[in-house]
Order: sequence, then structure tokens, then C-alpha cells
Amino acid sequence: MSESDTPVETLDPADWAAFRARAHAMLDAAVDRMEGGGEGPVWRMPTEALKAAFDVALPVEGLGAGAVDAQIAALLPFGVGNTHPRFFGWVHGSGTPSQLVAEMAASAMNANLGGREHGAIHVEKQVIRWCREIFGFPAEASGLIVSGTSMATIVALKAAREARLGVEARRQGIGAARLVGYTSALAHGCTDRAFDMLGLGSAALRRVPVDASGGMDLDALRVRIAEDRASGLEPFVIVGTAGSVDLGTFDDLDALADLAAQEGLWFHVDGAFGALAVLDPGLKPRVNGIERADSLAFDFHKWLHVTYDAGCVLIRDEAAHRQAFSDRPRYLKGAERGLAAGNPWPVDYGPELSRTFRALKVWAQLAEHGTARLGRMIAKNCRQASYLGDLVAADPALELLAPVTLNICCFRYRSEGDADALNDEIVIRLQEAGIAAPSTTTVEGMKAIRVNITNHRTRASDLDLLVEAVRRIGAEILAERAGG
Amino acid sequence: MSESDTPVETLDPADWAAFRARAHAMLDAAVDRMEGGGEGPVWRMPTEALKAAFDVALPVEGLGAGAVDAQIAALLPFGVGNTHPRFFGWVHGSGTPSQLVAEMAASAMNANLGGREHGAIHVEKQVIRWCREIFGFPAEASGLIVSGTSMATIVALKAAREARLGVEARRQGIGAARLVGYTSALAHGCTDRAFDMLGLGSAALRRVPVDASGGMDLDALRVRIAEDRASGLEPFVIVGTAGSVDLGTFDDLDALADLAAQEGLWFHVDGAFGALAVLDPGLKPRVNGIERADSLAFDFHKWLHVTYDAGCVLIRDEAAHRQAFSDRPRYLKGAERGLAAGNPWPVDYGPELSRTFRALKVWAQLAEHGTARLGRMIAKNCRQASYLGDLVAADPALELLAPVTLNICCFRYRSEGDADALNDEIVIRLQEAGIAAPSTTTVEGMKAIRVNITNHRTRASDLDLLVEAVRRIGAEILAERAGG
Ligand SMILES: Cc1ncc(COP(=O)(O)O)c(C=O)c1O
Ligand SMILES: Cc1ncc(COP(=O)(O)O)c(C=O)c1O
Repeated sequence: MSESDTPVETLDPADWAAFRARAHAMLDAAVDRMEGGGEGPVWRMPTEALKAAFDVALPVEGLGAGAVDAQIAALLPFGVGNTHPRFFGWVHGSGTPSQLVAEMAASAMNANLGGREHGAIHVEKQVIRWCREIFGFPAEASGLIVSGTSMATIVALKAAREARLGVEARRQGIGAARLVGYTSALAHGCTDRAFDMLGLGSAALRRVPVDASGGMDLDALRVRIAEDRASGLEPFVIVGTAGSVDLGTFDDLDALADLAAQEGLWFHVDGAFGALAVLDPGLKPRVNGIERADSLAFDFHKWLHVTYDAGCVLIRDEAAHRQAFSDRPRYLKGAERGLAAGNPWPVDYGPELSRTFRALKVWAQLAEHGTARLGRMIAKNCRQASYLGDLVAADPALELLAPVTLNICCFRYRSEGDADALNDEIVIRLQEAGIAAPSTTTVEGMKAIRVNITNHRTRASDLDLLVEAVRRIGAEILAERAGG
Repeated sequence: MSESDTPVETLDPADWAAFRARAHAMLDAAVDRMEGGGEGPVWRMPTEALKAAFDVALPVEGLGAGAVDAQIAALLPFGVGNTHPRFFGWVHGSGTPSQLVAEMAASAMNANLGGREHGAIHVEKQVIRWCREIFGFPAEASGLIVSGTSMATIVALKAAREARLGVEARRQGIGAARLVGYTSALAHGCTDRAFDMLGLGSAALRRVPVDASGGMDLDALRVRIAEDRASGLEPFVIVGTAGSVDLGTFDDLDALADLAAQEGLWFHVDGAFGALAVLDPGLKPRVNGIERADSLAFDFHKWLHVTYDAGCVLIRDEAAHRQAFSDRPRYLKGAERGLAAGNPWPVDYGPELSRTFRALKVWAQLAEHGTARLGRMIAKNCRQASYLGDLVAADPALELLAPVTLNICCFRYRSEGDADALNDEIVIRLQEAGIAAPSTTTVEGMKAIRVNITNHRTRASDLDLLVEAVRRIGAEILAERAGG
């Protein structure tokens, strides 16, 4: 075999010094981008040239490092905008430059965290322990780092499904089981989606109305459970919300935990961003009861500013968690010693086999900044949202559509005419001009400009600027309408 | 509000020049690690000191950059081993240094690829187009980059489930549906797991025996389908395997496509690593018929050496794919213009909402190296496995347990005594000594040393060294047994 004698072609650089220089150049471009992240427009439309460069035939012969790096460098300014201080859309974290440092190391290690015995596994274990500490979960609770709350919810509800149906359902299917669950009218759609994925059907998730505080109405919930039981259905889970996506409201988690215990139901909490309120002493009471949940789904990539993607599921009953997922094929059997040791493995706790080393960037974020500082960022965002609420309330052209209770402010530009279309157009123009990037939603049937502040870079002056721009653009559009 | 006047605390570096220096230092450590990746042991057991450092209380006050970076640097040598030329365990890709370059840019951008209109979205679209080209899928086919073949399989089979049950099953649940599917006895467990996740139950996935080639026995498959229909079950999918995990064998995909068409079944292919055989002209005929699949799941992180994690699902019928997942909540409605434009969004094609920018590293790997070179790496690994098979066959102490047909060689050290325990112990000692890292599996009831070569760094001399070490360690253990 000729390969034993002649140098073999690999995918490694032929010239490591040149590679090193290339990597340092890209690092400088990346740091430049981050350092200047607050300058320039929040968002810019991808240009035709950019799109065309990413619309070419499959390269049979490689384009080489130079061409690739130039194309990547040209892409850098065309992000979503969430690194900018005036990004207020959806619920996006802003990232931190220090994440890049951890990500370089993770890339060089290229570890697969499906299992086995190696250093990266211990980093993930540390992160899970820290998460248990943060949320007051018992030391025996299990956890898994996943891509986000959507996946965390699927994992948690599968554990809940099997806890109810018995582990035989994994082999036999859910059959004619008529499981139903309960969540608030304001809950995020990821729970509906989990019901759909798991074969239960999203209609089996009952939407319970909220009371004046925006939390699930407990009486309505009790009635609904009783009705379902009376008609032969089998309630199995209550899904509480810690921070609703549209308004930032909280269910009364303690009361839900009581009710779940009385009714013998699994108590899951969607705390995608809001659960992290636990890190600020002033906000912490809102999540009282979270420590009693059977499972909790939350994100690192939102209010902890870990880079995309990273979320987490914690499950109180480790055995229930493991039996819902563990099932290793013969080529993956763990060993007593060596590389295949270290049971149980992460694959025993989730649907994925190969898993990336997300844990390092999460660990680095918590370790470098500490929970006190991360908590201050959260409290600051809440103060900023309430400051924005005050600006809106003081402005006769604007109308607050819901009280600001956390980090979200939903308002609109008042108009006799089609206010929905007007506010949609205001948001689009704000984005197109690169001034700011709020998103929209619908609050009680009215189109709202939705400003969500999960952004450690936002300053009060950014909110002043936003309000002024909304007023100006709103007036502009009304003038166009009158003129047209 | 005081924040308008005083400098606000953020998570950005106070001193950007210091941050830049810090990042360059970590980059050098990362490049050092990669450059020296072939030296030293393949794997080393995490030390007690390393584990202790990752077993400390939650940091309320941050540890700061210096401490964090030192701890990360100390972690670098404790990887899985898959970056080393003598890593032969499971099916791990080796990564490439150039991935780091793309990952730095992705980290700085911190894009969320759930949707919207921004640069990163166009990179993912390019990757999906290239994948269609690679596998001969029609231009209308849809696709999604996911964490790996496990997730790709869940996505594909959910589309298949809904294609059979109708989209109302998403709301109403799968109810009393008695869906069954078919796959080979050698197929990977991720399909069983997908059946379990989706509520169908893994017993609904029938394991069909293989013929002498290691491909699914078509007569047995036909019989099984007929039996199931006769007993009132509803066959809905055939899952073909392109590259079985234990032996690297292929189903006759063309024949399966014919049968699926005759029977009116969805034809899914698990091509986790083996599908990439398409990139080598000599191997390409093995995957004939793959272009006829209704859906295909495969990985970038295995035989294309993209860093963990990255896989892909392609689905022929874009509408079937979209209707199985699309369901955007009110705060995510797409817009005509601005940042919320660009319908459909990736969230319309999978279970995740927030999504990381995996596409950039995949794009960079294909663009920089080109498919011809990537294909040469694959062909080389297959030649190497067959070279190893020859070494084993020529050695009286060793026994080949299955013919080498692709990149996997399963063999064992012969022994009159407990051969299973002996071979387990050989593998553990190889790993513990850091000489090489094969894994084990069971072939026809016999414990095998399983050497999987999805490694662009492996040289023939690494295989010589492996065989010599297996002989030596095997003899050592036998001598210990005789002595003890
Ligand atoms: C309350 C809530 N739950 C769940 C999600 C989904 O989280 P992810 O995008 O991490 O899957 C979100 C996202 O905004 C959310 O706000
Ligand atoms: C044939 C086959 N299918 C599926 C998988 C699972 O892939 P992943 O780990 O990317 O989820 C593997 C992993 O080795 C495999 O070899």
C-alpha cells in the first residue's frame, strides 16, 4: 500500500504557520465586528451580491482558504442585529465577546458529548450542577444541555409521558391513551409543538385563560381538569410559564405546584427567559415554586447571552428521565474502564446521539461573569422596559397595550385609521432604516410594537431614540396616507 | 433614570485591546493543540485535578477572564481522541482546523437561524442546495441542517407520519393509528428512537433480516409487509440503510425504492456516514437509488469532518415537510419586508425555534476543500480498512469477523478461553495506554474489536502499529491468565 511511504493527503493545512496567520486574521475581523457592534445600523438587508455569492454550484474543486475567508468576512455585517444595543425583537440574547474564546477551544477539541469518559463530559456535569443550584433543584435531579427551550420541552414532556404511561409505551406506542395537559393562554407554542411531536396532538394541550395578573386562572384550571376527567380523559401534566413571550407575565408557580400535587400531575415549567429572574433578588419572588417543578426548560442563549444555541432541561426524578431515553445499541455499550466508561452517558437523557460541546461556552459565561453580574443585567433590562413604559404613557401619540411587568413593553402608535397596518409599517421602517429592531405581536386583538429587552448593551438613550423615531415615522406615514 | 448619564455595566470587555490579546492567546493555544494533535496519546483519562476544577460551587462573583482561560487551556488535552490519527472508535469525524476559522465568525455574528431575513439564512440555503446536488434530489426538495442523523430521522419520520395520517394528526394526536415501518436488522437504533419519540413505539419498527451482502432481505421484507397488512396494521415507511454502523453494509436502495413505490410507502434512507460514499466515483454505485428517497438523513460531522454537531435532512416533498412542522405563533408572523421577511423560515421545517449558525462551518468545509478532495478522503479510509482486513487475515492470532466492505473492520484476537472478555480488555488497554482507540461491538454473538476509519489523518502505519499492539496486548493478557 503506497500510503505507508508517501505523504498522505489530509484535510489539515499543508503549512501550519500560514494557517495560524489566517486564523489570527479572521479573529481580528471577528473582534472588529464585535467591537464595532453598536455602531452602524441595527440590521441591513442582505445585498444581491451577498446572496449571489451564496448561490453557486457545488464546488468540486475547493475554492481554497483565501476565497472562503473573504466571503465569510463579507458576511459578517449581515447578522440578525441582536448584537446591537437597539435590537428589541422577539427574545434574542446578545451574546458576549468572551463566548468566542470558549468557542475556539471547543472547536479545536471537537468533542462529541454523546457520552464516554473525557474532559468535556465533566464540564457539562458542572453546568448541570450549577443549574440545579440556581433553581434550587435537589442534588439527585438530572439535566441535559440542549439546543433550546423547544427541545428541552420535548425532552421533559417525554419523561412526563412515560412517567404516566409506563416505560412500555416506548416500545408499544402510546396507543389509545387519551392524555391531556394544561397551560396558560399566554404560554409559548413550543409546548403545543411538543404535544404534536410526541403523538399526543396539540389539541390535548388545554389553554387555560389568564387572570388580571397574566397568570393562569387557577379556578378555570381546576374546572377544566375536572371536566376532562369526567369525560374519560387522562390529565397528566400542568405546564407553568415563568415569563410569557408576549408580555413577560408569570404563573403562580407555587399554586400550580400545589395543584399538581393534589391532582397527581407532572409539573413542568417553561422558563425560557423568565426563569432567570431568579438571579435578581428583587425579581426572585416571581419564580417562587420553580424549585418544586418536576421539570424545567430554560435557555442560556436568551437572558444569559450565551451564543446560539444553548438551552437546558432539569428533571427532578433522574430515574424517570433516564428510563424515557436510555436504550443504548450494542456498539455503544459502556465499559468499566477506558474511553467507553463513565456511565450514565448524556445519550441516556435525550434524543440525540452525537452532541456538540455547548457546555464549555455556558460554563465560561457563568464562570467569567458570575451570577450576580448576570442578574444585574436582567434587573437593568426590567428597569429599562419600565422606563420605556413611562415614556409611552407620557406621550399622547402612543398607547401602552399592556402593563410593563418585566422586560417587555407592548405599545402602539394611536390612529383613527388602520392602526394595525400603521404599526406594522412603523416597525418595518425602523428595521429598514437600521434605527432599531423591535418586533410585533397582537395583544387583545390589537397589533403591538413589541419591545423586548434581553440585551445587556441597551442604554436608556437607545429607548429615547426609539420613541422619538416611532413618533416621527408614525407621523410620516399618516401624512403619506393623507397626501395619497 | 441614572443610566442615561453614567456609563452602564455590560458584559462587554472594559478594555477591548486586552480582550483582543486574550482571544489571540487562546487561538494560539487552540492551534497548538490542533497542530500537535497527532502526537501524544490518543486519549487520556481526565485527571482528578481536572475533574475537581469543574466541581466547584456556583460562582456568584465571576472568576474573571484569566482564571477561566487557564482552566480552558488545561482542558484542551482531554478530548475524546477523535482528532488523533489512531482514533477508530464508533463513527466519529476528525474535524479540520479550518472549521475553527468559520466558527469564530459564526460566534461573532451570533445569528439565530430560526428564521427572518439576514445573511446567515442564505448560507443555510446554499448548503441545502449543495446537498440536493450531491444526492441528486430535485430542486423543489426541502432540507434542514440539524444536530445529527438522530434528529434528522425524527424530522423525516414525522413528515412521513403526517403524510400518512393527515395533518390533522398534529392537533388530534395519532390516536388508534397502527402504523408500522421496516428496517434492516443492521440498522442504527436512531430509527427505533424516532418511532418511540413520535408515539408510534419502537416495536412498530420491524427489523428485517439481512442477506449475505448485509443488505435487507427483500423477500423477507415483502412477506412481513403482507403479514402486517393481513393483521390490520398500516405499513407506512421503509427505512433503508446506506452504511450500517457495525459493518458498513448497504441496503439495495433502488430495490427498496421500487418496493416502496409498489406498496405506497414513504422511503427514508439513513445515510449517516455511508451516504457520503456518493462523493467517490468508485463507491457511488453502492448508493444507487438514494436519489429516489422521500427523505434522507445524514451527517456532516462524520465523514465530512465538520466539527460537532451538524447533520442534515432532505425531504423530496417540500409541502409534506412544511405541513408537518409549520405553525408559527402570533409573535413570529412573517412580514413582507424588513427583518421579519423571508418566508418560509427554517422553523417551518423542524422542531426547533432558536437555531445556531451551523451552516457556516458546513459551507466552509465544502467550499474550501471541494467534494473531490472530501471524496478522496473517504476512498482512502475504505482502502485503509481493507488493508487492515488483509493484515488481520494474514495473522494467525487474529480472526476477521466480517468481510471489510467499506471503512469498518471487525476482528478479534483468537482465544480458547473467554474471547469476549479478552477482546474487551484489549480495547480498554489500547485506550488506557493511549496507543489507539477502537471501540467494540458484537458480531453474530461474538465480541469484536471494531475499527471504524472515518479519519482523514490515519496513515497505513497507524494500522500496522494497531495490529502489532493488539497482538502484544492479547498475548500479555493470556500470559497473565495463565500465570494467575
Ligand atoms: C416563553 C418561551 N418559551 C419557549 C421559547 C422557545 O425557546 P427556543 O427558541 O430556545 O426553543 C421561547 C422563545 O422565545 C419563549 O419565549
Ligand atoms: C448508520 C447511523 N445512523 C445514525 C447514527 C446517529 O447519528 P448521530 O450521532 O449524528 O445522531 C449513526 C451514528 O453513528 C450511524 O452510524
